[in-house]
Amino acid sequence: MKRVLLTGGCGFVGRHAAAGLAARGFEVHVVDIREPAAGVLPEGAVFHASDLLNTDAMRRLVGQTSPTHLLHLAWTTAHGKFWTADENMDWLRAGVELTRRFVAEGGQRMVGAGTCAEYDWNSGICSEETTPIKPATLYGHCKNSLQQAAAAFCRQKGVSFGWGRTFFLYGPAEDPRRLIPYVITSLLKGETANCTHGRQVRDYIHVADAGAAFAAFLDSAVEGPVNIASGRPRMLREITEIISIFTGNSHLLHMGAVEASPGDSMLIAAETRRLTDEVGFVPPTGLEIGIKETVEWWKRQL
Amino acid sequence: MKRVLLTGGCGFVGRHAAAGLAARGFEVHVVDIREPAAGVLPEGAVFHASDLLNTDAMRRLVGQTSPTHLLHLAWTTAHGKFWTADENMDWLRAGVELTRRFVAEGGQRMVGAGTCAEYDWNSGICSEETTPIKPATLYGHCKNSLQQAAAAFCRQKGVSFGWGRTFFLYGPAEDPRRLIPYVITSLLKGETANCTHGRQVRDYIHVADAGAAFAAFLDSAVEGPVNIASGRPRMLREITEIISIFTGNSHLLHMGAVEASPGDSMLIAAETRRLTDEVGFVPPTGLEIGIKETVEWWKRQL
Repeated sequence: MKRVLLTGGCGFVGRHAAAGLAARGFEVHVVDIREPAAGVLPEGAVFHASDLLNTDAMRRLVGQTSPTHLLHLAWTTAHGKFWTADENMDWLRAGVELTRRFVAEGGQRMVGAGTCAEYDWNSGICSEETTPIKPATLYGHCKNSLQQAAAAFCRQKGVSFGWGRTFFLYGPAEDPRRLIPYVITSLLKGETANCTHGRQVRDYIHVADAGAAFAAFLDSAVEGPVNIASGRPRMLREITEIISIFTGNSHLLHMGAVEASPGDSMLIAAETRRLTDEVGFVPPTGLEIGIKETVEWWKRQL
Repeated sequence: MKRVLLTGGCGFVGRHAAAGLAARGFEVHVVDIREPAAGVLPEGAVFHASDLLNTDAMRRLVGQTSPTHLLHLAWTTAHGKFWTADENMDWLRAGVELTRRFVAEGGQRMVGAGTCAEYDWNSGICSEETTPIKPATLYGHCKNSLQQAAAAFCRQKGVSFGWGRTFFLYGPAEDPRRLIPYVITSLLKGETANCTHGRQVRDYIHVADAGAAFAAFLDSAVEGPVNIASGRPRMLREITEIISIFTGNSHLLHMGAVEASPGDSMLIAAETRRLTDEVGFVPPTGLEIGIKETVEWWKRQL
């Protein structure tokens, strides 16, 4: 029996990972700080309300659920703040302790969520094997610190360890202050969408594909870092144009109205050979289809 | 007023750091798990018995002492076991939380103890600026993870941060199972000292110099990693010969009697320009003097 403890399992990507794990026959135990709305979790998933930053509560939870697998997605994600939030230190601490307890309770395989912000963004397309690790933010540093310690610990204890570095996610239920939902909702409401020049190239993956990718990765024996990305980078101005096709109001798209931030990289894109060839997962959702579906979701909310 | 919280302050190097800090005019608060013997701590130092792995106790301690400076030396050091001990994960977790609390309580400058085991030992003499970080052990990984996160966090919070990477220490009160005290005590007792071939080159620094170096480093404004080493590497067989000069019984020195372990590197030596030129600390104790003094100390114990 494969019994997985999924942290952050009600979050933006976590709910899709939960569905993917259930579909693969895992007994799914989801931990999150707040009980999700009905229908967020797949049928049969067991929900545990717990604060992973509370060490005692976390230890109890791992002891109670005694998971064979751990998919650790929980982290601070407050929009605009998570890059520098002090809570990055708390999540590093909690991740180290969670790894320790999971292994102590007989866990066999663990996958954690990393980030493209671990890479040196000035070294071209990010490859797990060759791109230097050089985080520019506290978020990237704390994620990478957890990866380094957890990988070494698991290797030593004979526990299988993988690390999924997520690139840019989009899809239904994304925080509306982020680029894609901001442009969608602005244009749907007939309001101006103020953007930067839009020549930045980014790898966006549909959040449902990212969740399914994590489920496939956990269910494989692949070790080490794997980029969770579509492998099909696009220019931001191309993405905003696709949005306007489905929303209308393309004249409200003001490219160049906002200055790009100084740390903004022109290229953040992923090599995805490990995901497609080793894990065997090819993200199915093309950007046009995914954006069309996301626009339709927003039409139902507004 | 400079008020320092010194962790591991009764340990092998910590007690010398305590003396160095007191001599520099710090109000010294030492935390260790067990009360030290009389005379270990300098006059005026305040001792706090506390377990840093107990998060609540540690938070209380930092709140009570409200230090301007933090010198964090505490870590698991069990001989022969610390390279792979599970407790490395606990000390990483505790170090992350300690850094967080120190900064929250208004701390101004922190120095932590790193290790030469963070470096790639196959890249020649270890330089803080150019040698790749590539730990081969859980110990090295956890130390480096702490350094990475704590440095990023302190930078973001405007707190000055330094990281002292210790090389090989020796001196009075060292664990007698380690090379130098093992050879000293064997020869003093008229017993065979079984050694490897002894052609390995190592940077050994006297523990009192290492403690004084940490005190000078904390008392400076130098940031980032600094090697805590003598800068004068020697072959192990040369060191054992020096020992035999002061103990006699050189015929009991059996070089080549023990196989070197497979991971043993032929060269572990430090570039010390940052310590000598930036911190302004030149380790005063030559190896011959240091070993003579250590042999005399052991003569009084046996």
